[in-house]
Amino acid sequence: MATIKDIAEKLNISAGTVSKGLNGGTDISEALRKQILETAVALGYTPKKARNPDTRSLALLIENMDYQNSNDFGYDIVLGFRQAALRAGWNVDVIPVDEDFQSAHPYDSYLLSRGYSAAFLCGLALNDPWEEQIRDTSVATVLLDNNAADNPHVCFIGTDSARAMELTISHLVSLGHEKIAFLDGSAHSYISDQRMYAYLSCMKKFQLPIHPNLAVYGYYVADSARYHVPGFLDFGATAIVCGNDEIAGGVIECCRAAGLSVPEDISVIGFDDLPASGDLLPPLTTIRQNRLSIGKCGVYLIDAMLDGCNMSSVHLQPKLILRDSTAIAKPRLASGRFDDRDSVRYINPQLYEQFVL
Amino acid sequence: MATIKDIAEKLNISAGTVSKGLNGGTDISEALRKQILETAVALGYTPKKARNPDTRSLALLIENMDYQNSNDFGYDIVLGFRQAALRAGWNVDVIPVDEDFQSAHPYDSYLLSRGYSAAFLCGLALNDPWEEQIRDTSVATVLLDNNAADNPHVCFIGTDSARAMELTISHLVSLGHEKIAFLDGSAHSYISDQRMYAYLSCMKKFQLPIHPNLAVYGYYVADSARYHVPGFLDFGATAIVCGNDEIAGGVIECCRAAGLSVPEDISVIGFDDLPASGDLLPPLTTIRQNRLSIGKCGVYLIDAMLDGCNMSSVHLQPKLILRDSTAIAKPRLASGRFDDRDSVRYINPQLYEQFVL
Repeated sequence: MATIKDIAEKLNISAGTVSKGLNGGTDISEALRKQILETAVALGYTPKKARNPDTRSLALLIENMDYQNSNDFGYDIVLGFRQAALRAGWNVDVIPVDEDFQSAHPYDSYLLSRGYSAAFLCGLALNDPWEEQIRDTSVATVLLDNNAADNPHVCFIGTDSARAMELTISHLVSLGHEKIAFLDGSAHSYISDQRMYAYLSCMKKFQLPIHPNLAVYGYYVADSARYHVPGFLDFGATAIVCGNDEIAGGVIECCRAAGLSVPEDISVIGFDDLPASGDLLPPLTTIRQNRLSIGKCGVYLIDAMLDGCNMSSVHLQPKLILRDSTAIAKPRLASGRFDDRDSVRYINPQLYEQFVL
Repeated sequence: MATIKDIAEKLNISAGTVSKGLNGGTDISEALRKQILETAVALGYTPKKARNPDTRSLALLIENMDYQNSNDFGYDIVLGFRQAALRAGWNVDVIPVDEDFQSAHPYDSYLLSRGYSAAFLCGLALNDPWEEQIRDTSVATVLLDNNAADNPHVCFIGTDSARAMELTISHLVSLGHEKIAFLDGSAHSYISDQRMYAYLSCMKKFQLPIHPNLAVYGYYVADSARYHVPGFLDFGATAIVCGNDEIAGGVIECCRAAGLSVPEDISVIGFDDLPASGDLLPPLTTIRQNRLSIGKCGVYLIDAMLDGCNMSSVHLQPKLILRDSTAIAKPRLASGRFDDRDSVRYINPQLYEQFVL
């Protein structure tokens, strides 16, 4: 393991200066501090704080994920992570990290300079500043719903999208549905692409129609529904699968506004199983992500990685929670009002062509 | 958590009799012992031994896997498992389990009656007696290279076959190979099917020929080569990908016997990276499975499962180890001696049809 002396020798400066750079001393230049931190990372230096069992800490880095209230998607993830960390003797700091924050702080230097042994990173988008840096990080990192192939220090964790979509589509098929729409979450998201791939694979497997008017990206918010539900209805969809429960709530509203009853006229399925989803009208049929498990598992994986295990991905089991928002299909004719070109722009053409061409 | 009293009440017998059944007492009938153990499993009873930190034990169950010598595939797996278990305060018993053993001992009852908290099960075949029982087990079980979908007590662990095959095929493509054969391991093996699927997917992705004379199942032994290599050569293959390093050793012998030099006339790639594979002539290019990591990871996953985490699968990163058994493709004409029908029986038709039809 590299020491402060190694860094000092490499940069031809004193150990005292290196120590200042690593510990936030104020009387050195920013340029030198950056150089010291980057050299420390390159040499594989581990801060004393991270080696001391009494002070060793994990960073729980959160972007694009609500976690403060018990109905928030991230609440149980943070809770589970804290529970398992406490049990294993880790301190945990929960740190919100937006794009500006990421631009201001290089990933490895940020964690190293603050003495974190490892990180659990939630909600990173594919176009975020840290996305590239994660590919080469030397800090043990568990990535929720995101991927960093072939870096032995990074591991994907998430609910199994393929299995989740299989549970969803086979449930709808058992109710006679064929024209099944999928309103995915945001583009520029690894997990949105995974779920879209899983949806298209399943539709193909069940020999159901694959069409750009049925398979679109939106955003992970309820408001996303009103831009896409009219298109689904015009196209004659009898069921709408949603990227999360909030989208599903918006979809139910839109269907109602269009004069349709859920589930009598159209079936709706969510994803996540937030605590409030059982209280929707109608109570939402959805895929449960065991978020407490995701959080806990993050700590066990970090311990494994710090012991030299090189996992690339860990998938958790999804569970189909049957409530009242799905029913036997009621076939509806397409209105003919839809316009192919309008919807095509919402689809990922690379994914789509694999299944259509 | 269920107690001995709960089991006694359920069966309407005395607590003392239940205790005899659980602890191997001799003065009760086998039928009653079986009934007691099965009731204990159904109620979720955990033996005192498994609750006591001083005596808590893990079972490392091994079938179809050599592990006694340092060149054996299983050696590092057992070592890694023991290392991580020691660190976490677990006792470990290594238990060989063949078909007869499995027929004689129901899975859950066996583990429960001996006080094991959890198990790591290696080498189980799809047609083994325990295969069905694992689907419903309530004992936390990590399964190497095998699957038990949707049982929250069971988790797959293995090297990522899709990524491994991508590294393999893209390496061969970069050397100009097109007619790439795959001599897989045994049929009736979950992981053989996973690798065959990965091979066929990759060949399709790279727009390379998919043919039953190029994609066959053998056995995970060197001797497997002589049944299939002549067919590959007659068909004009310029490279042979193998299900493990032992098969690759046999393939190299067969090619030599047919008057071909490896890698000048034909390229050969293994899978596993056993210690001896670097000493083959020529030293073998292969996919490294980090077996120490697999073993260690097994313990971390067991700890996570016992804390309520419901993983379905954990994949480890494969690594392509470049040595001297691959080179630029030397195109060879098919001899025309091959017979489609002879080889077709070695393929899994369900898998094959997905890619050809």
